[in-house]
Parts: sequence; structure tokens; C-alpha cells
Amino acid sequence: MKQLHKQMSSKRDDDTIPMSQSSPYSPKALKHPRSLPRSLHYLFREQRLLFILVGILIGSTFFILQPSLSRLSPAESTSLITRSVSSTNYSPSRMSFNYGGGKTGRVPVGIGPRRLRIVVTGGAGFVGSHLVDKLIGRGDEVIVIDNFFTGRKENLVHLFSNPRFELIRHDVVEPILLEVDQIYHLACPASPVHYKYNPVKTIKTNVMGTLNMLGLAKRVGARFLLTSTSEVYGDPLEHPQKETYWGNVNPIGERSCYDEGKRTAETLAMDYHRGAGVEVRIARIFNTYGPRMCLDDGRVVSNFVAQTIRKHPMTVYGDGKQTRSFQYVSDLVDGLVALMENDHVGPFNLGNPGEFTMLELAEVVKEVIDPSATIEFKPNTADDPHKRKPDISKAKELLNWEPKISLRDGLPRMVSDFRNRILNEDEGKGL
Amino acid sequence: MKQLHKQMSSKRDDDTIPMSQSSPYSPKALKHPRSLPRSLHYLFREQRLLFILVGILIGSTFFILQPSLSRLSPAESTSLITRSVSSTNYSPSRMSFNYGGGKTGRVPVGIGPRRLRIVVTGGAGFVGSHLVDKLIGRGDEVIVIDNFFTGRKENLVHLFSNPRFELIRHDVVEPILLEVDQIYHLACPASPVHYKYNPVKTIKTNVMGTLNMLGLAKRVGARFLLTSTSEVYGDPLEHPQKETYWGNVNPIGERSCYDEGKRTAETLAMDYHRGAGVEVRIARIFNTYGPRMCLDDGRVVSNFVAQTIRKHPMTVYGDGKQTRSFQYVSDLVDGLVALMENDHVGPFNLGNPGEFTMLELAEVVKEVIDPSATIEFKPNTADDPHKRKPDISKAKELLNWEPKISLRDGLPRMVSDFRNRILNEDEGKGL
Repeated sequence: MKQLHKQMSSKRDDDTIPMSQSSPYSPKALKHPRSLPRSLHYLFREQRLLFILVGILIGSTFFILQPSLSRLSPAESTSLITRSVSSTNYSPSRMSFNYGGGKTGRVPVGIGPRRLRIVVTGGAGFVGSHLVDKLIGRGDEVIVIDNFFTGRKENLVHLFSNPRFELIRHDVVEPILLEVDQIYHLACPASPVHYKYNPVKTIKTNVMGTLNMLGLAKRVGARFLLTSTSEVYGDPLEHPQKETYWGNVNPIGERSCYDEGKRTAETLAMDYHRGAGVEVRIARIFNTYGPRMCLDDGRVVSNFVAQTIRKHPMTVYGDGKQTRSFQYVSDLVDGLVALMENDHVGPFNLGNPGEFTMLELAEVVKEVIDPSATIEFKPNTADDPHKRKPDISKAKELLNWEPKISLRDGLPRMVSDFRNRILNEDEGKGL
Repeated sequence: MKQLHKQMSSKRDDDTIPMSQSSPYSPKALKHPRSLPRSLHYLFREQRLLFILVGILIGSTFFILQPSLSRLSPAESTSLITRSVSSTNYSPSRMSFNYGGGKTGRVPVGIGPRRLRIVVTGGAGFVGSHLVDKLIGRGDEVIVIDNFFTGRKENLVHLFSNPRFELIRHDVVEPILLEVDQIYHLACPASPVHYKYNPVKTIKTNVMGTLNMLGLAKRVGARFLLTSTSEVYGDPLEHPQKETYWGNVNPIGERSCYDEGKRTAETLAMDYHRGAGVEVRIARIFNTYGPRMCLDDGRVVSNFVAQTIRKHPMTVYGDGKQTRSFQYVSDLVDGLVALMENDHVGPFNLGNPGEFTMLELAEVVKEVIDPSATIEFKPNTADDPHKRKPDISKAKELLNWEPKISLRDGLPRMVSDFRNRILNEDEGKGL
């Protein structure tokens, strides 16, 4: 400040007393003791004070306007991205494909055939992408939300050019506001290897994610479908499991983040249904297989198929006599849509009640993929889930749904997808 | 801006051409078409532009400093409150009682006797306030966090003048940063009438509240004790319940918000323990009674005692042969402290294994409070919890803890507290 004042003083001297520069004994050199009263006098003359005030006004105006300006900028930057996406290598935080007429909000009723606007969380995942295919196929508008923790853009790339499809990179742990008619809430890693990776995040996804999507459903009056899991039955003491069974779940184990998270998600859904009148649907999904499954997430079907394609022996843990039920993904997707369109809250078991031992499964894989495949036995892991088999009589009766595709019919349908991906993977490694 | 410019121009004229004021045909009246070049000339003379810049600098400095100033202000405003609180009628959002030496952060080790700084969430509640009394009594510094949904300041008013005590009005659903050695996490409504009031908030309290306090424990390296509940056993198929029992809990019922919320809180605690190395302790609390219980929260002990004091008949639902176990609050508090100070994670059942039917309880109340008390039978409610009885052998063995106060000894200790509060309540109504 002192320096500034000195500068100003000297400048004033330059202007008004130019002759002083020639003399070393000019008043400029002597004026220091008298500078304060002189500067004050100088300040008050020629409306200089007024101009300081004008300056303050200009400076303040900038800072007052600035927050609203900076608040605008992120929205502007995403709208710049909106129209420019075409390749999968490009990963913007929000890829939006504009609707033909530039409509905003939900599709107005009465203008042409009724089209639903549907959001599918986790829509880039294995089950989600098949569901999206079905919804797009019947003519609806679909918004996919995915954080791509286990989801892959490859599962949806064939839809990128469809104007009724939109993909948003978003984590459901954060709220989002959309105008939709239906919410399929699938977002959550579903394989132990993935959901144990960050158990606290798994709980957040299940609890806060479900809370956020239920809040959205409440705000916009959308119907909400929760994809729960057969894991809510834990290590069941009833076999097969009916929806009325309360389960046998360890609250403090390593798998609890998923099991308890999903149970709490169900609780939240029911509380929003009872308390806020939200139209809720709950599906409890049993083991499912099909194209686009994660290759190496430790599930037995993808393990066996991938191992056989790679010409490795199939790994059977324990004696191979533990049983599993496997449902083909298109059956599940049909069940989810039937549940959403129906009037029953649920919960509904969606699974294939056909039961196979691990050895029987290995035999089928051998038969339909590669007769030369071999089996390798390894000791069983500690938390290997015990047998689980859905009782689907409730879904049969109320939703008129039951699985149609047997293991022998379903397995071959996933082989070409797996073969391509394993081939690409190997090529990628070779580079 | 135009007006301002005009003002400035006229002011300049006032100064430099004073004679113009006397004439209606002065240059002032004619200058409008020439005002732009003239004002520019005017601006560039006498360093006026420089002074505008100085003004901008002053204005900007204020706004640049302002955020850090406003960030300081809440802390300043609370420190203003710090010393001025003495009456319970005064309810600031943060009541802080400064520590003697004005220390910040945790109590430094090695200066005098080691004093712990402990936070008790829900410390204004029934159990919390008794725990705070014990911790203050043994010489520690205690910070209470409470949102006063069911907690009451009256439970702590006797500590308000103690410099080792501090009370913060805060909801654990929001994060908070404190420097503490131990965290007793009790915050959650515990009676069905309260936790069913807003089931979604109950889940948020249990999940996000626990998450926030575990995050705090991780950040500051504090030991964390979760008060879970016997409700995690649900409608138990084992009797009495051992800690290894996984429970029989309905995930989609009206009580699930509490049961599943607490189960997920346990999961979170264990995940922070396994994943982040947080020192975690889990207590599963069974029915507890004592002074400062909520008067009308539907619990049987407070119901019977309050009804007897009010000279109403005691309401027994059903045939009165269902059983309950009741632990006196000082026993529970001893157990919580023993668990916190010990090396075992838990979970530990903390409860009194003594089992009473409702009719036996009514008899004891009659005997120790008012021999003229009567009983009234009413039909049982739908979700009345079935019998529950803790197996406390684990706590006995590892914590060397067991309850000491029988029902006959404990009941009389809550009578004077209840009598005073009911009296005050009636006086309040009479006003």
C-alpha cells in the first residue's frame, strides 16, 4: 500500500510538476514528511474518491456475478458434448443422444402412440444391457445410468446410434433428476469378487443408490423395480425358497455387504411404498447366465465356458456334487418386464428351478461346446454358497411367468459371445 | 451507469466551471452530444483511471478474502456462545464448554493424568445420558452429539456447568469432525413408536450415521463402539440367543427399518474393522429400563410404572404370559464401558438373562410401587415381539461382566424420576 501510494504520488508529481525531474533538490525529494496531508488533499480533489468508489463497484459486480457464472459452466460444457459422441473410445462424463423433436420431460400422452421413458440403472451390465435391448426393441425410450464399475460400453455400443437410447455415466450413490415413467434399478456389483472389492461402497450403492432412485420415483411419480437377490435368503434353512422365507444371513461376514445391503434396499423400497405410496416392484434374482457375462468374476457358468474355450480344464471345487439352478438371461428379462407391468409389489423369485450338480453342468458344457474338455478338481472355498433353488409358484401364478430356456438350449447361445471376447482379449495381450 | 456518468460529469462541471451554474445557457446544458469524448478526456486526466483500478483492487480484495472470512464465522459465532450457556431454556445449535487450559485437539499424552476425550452420539437419550454420567464421573472429557429427536436436555442439564462436558446439536446423518479417542455410537430412536415414525430416516440414521462415525473413527484413529440391538435376532428360532445366531428377521416388514438398519450398521462396522483396521466394538443391547426412560414410548416397563404412578390400571396385552428380560441401565452402562476398554470386537450380548412374564412384571411393579395397582387386559398387537433372552456367557467370560441389579432392586430406582416428570407434565397441562 505504501509502495502504491508512493507510485501514485510520484505519478502525480510527473504530471503536475514536470520541472522537478531536472533538479535533485526538487520538492519531490523533500516531500516525504508532508506526504499524508498532501495525499489526502490530492485524494479529495478531482473526484478521485468517487472514482475509487466506481472501481469498487466494478470489482464487486464481477465477484457478485461470478458464482452464478461458474455455476452455469458445467452444464454448458456437457451440452457441448451432447451431439458429438460416436465412437466408444471417447468417454465423456455424459453421453446424450438427443430425441428427434428435442422434447424435454416425459413423452406427452396423446401425441402418437404412448411411448414410455424408462431409466435402467446398471444398464451397461450383463442383465441390464439385455433388458435395455428388450425395452428398446418394443419401442420405448431408454436412459441407461452406469458408473462402469462392472458394466461395459461394449454391451450397448449397438444402440449408440438409436435416438431412443441415451447413456449417462453416473454413480447412483449421488442423486440424479430425470423425467421418467419407470425405473429399473439394477445398479450394484453382483459377483462376490466385485462386491467384496470395496464392501463399504457396495453398501452405499445398495442403500444410498436405492434411496436416491426411490426419491426420484417419488418426485416424478415413476414406478420403481428393485432387483434384489436370492442372497437375501443367505444360507437357507428352507429348500426350495419361498418369498415368505425370511432368510438365514450372517450380518457380520465378508459377504454381508451385499446380502444385508440388498435386504436393506428391500426395506427401503417397502417403506417408500407404504409411507409415500411409491409404486414398487421387488424381484429376487437367482443365478443367471448368458452372453455378456463378466469373463472372470468367478461364477461357475462363465468359468466353465471360458475355460473350455481357452482349452483349459474346468475347475470343480470340492466333490462337484453341490447343486445350482441356472436361468438364461432372456427368461429373467421377461420376468422383470412382466413384474414391472403387473400390479403386484412382490417380492417375486425370478430363477430357474432346474437343479444341476457342478459335475452335471460340466457334462453339459462338454457336450454343447467342446467334447474334449476336461475337469480339474480343487478343494472347496470357505464361503462357497450352499444349494439354493427358487420356488417360483408365486411368479407363475401372479405374473404368468416361468423360464422357457433349458441349460442345454441356453449354453450354446453364450458361446460365440465368449469366444469373440476371449479372442479379442488374447489379441489385446499379444499387442 | 449512464446516470452515474451523468452525475460524475455534472460534478466535474460543478468543480471546474463554477460560473456555469448561474447561466441557463451554460455549456453544461449543451454538452450532451459531445459528452463521450469529453468524458473520456475527463477520465484519462488527473489519474482518475488509476483510482478506478485502486477501487477495483479494494473491492476484489474484499471478495477474495470474504470466503475465508465467512468460513471462519460459524466457528467464531459458536465460540461466542461457548461461555454464555447456563440455562436449559437457551438452545443454541452448539453449546460448547471450554476446557480449562484452552487446549485444542485431543488431550496431549503425558501432561498430567491421561484423560480421554470421548464422543457419545445420542448422549442426551436414556442410555446415553447414563453413560455420559459414568464417563464424566471417572474424569474423562465427554462430547455429546444429539439431534434431540428422542433425547432430552433435561437428562444432561446437571452437567452443563462442568468444563469437561460439551453438548452439540447435530444429526449423525451429516458428517462431523472431532478430535476424540473413543466414539460411543448410540444415536438412533430405539422404540417402535419412534423408529416407525419415519422409517426411511431410521435407516439413514443407522446406515449413514454409522458410516459417518466410522469415517470419523478412521480419520482420527479413535476406537468405535456400535450399540446394536437384540432386534438383529428378529423373531429368534434359537432360545436363548447366542452371538453366533444369525437371526430370523423379516426384511420387508414395518419393523425392518430398525432391524435391518442395525444389521447393516454391524456389517459396516465389521467392514471398517477388516478393511480399514478401525478398532471396533459391537454390543447387542437387550431390553433395558431405568430413570430417564421415555414416558410414553410403548415399552412395557415404562408403561406399567407410568400407569401405576398415574393411578391408571396397567395394560397387559394378550394373556400376559409372554416373557421379557429386563436389565437395569447401570448394568448396561458398565457393560458398554467394559466392552470399549477390552480387546474383543464382539458382537457381545448385553442384557439380563432373568426372564419374567408380563404378569410377573406387573406383580413386581405392584409390590414395589403401589400395592393398590390394578391390571387391565387388552388384545395383543400384531407385531408384538416374541420371547427373547440373551445368552451372556461370552460377555461373562471375555469381559468379566454380568448384570448385578435385579428387577426388584432396579424398579424402585426409577420411580422418583418418573413421579417428578409425570408431576411436571401434569402441571404443564394445567397451565
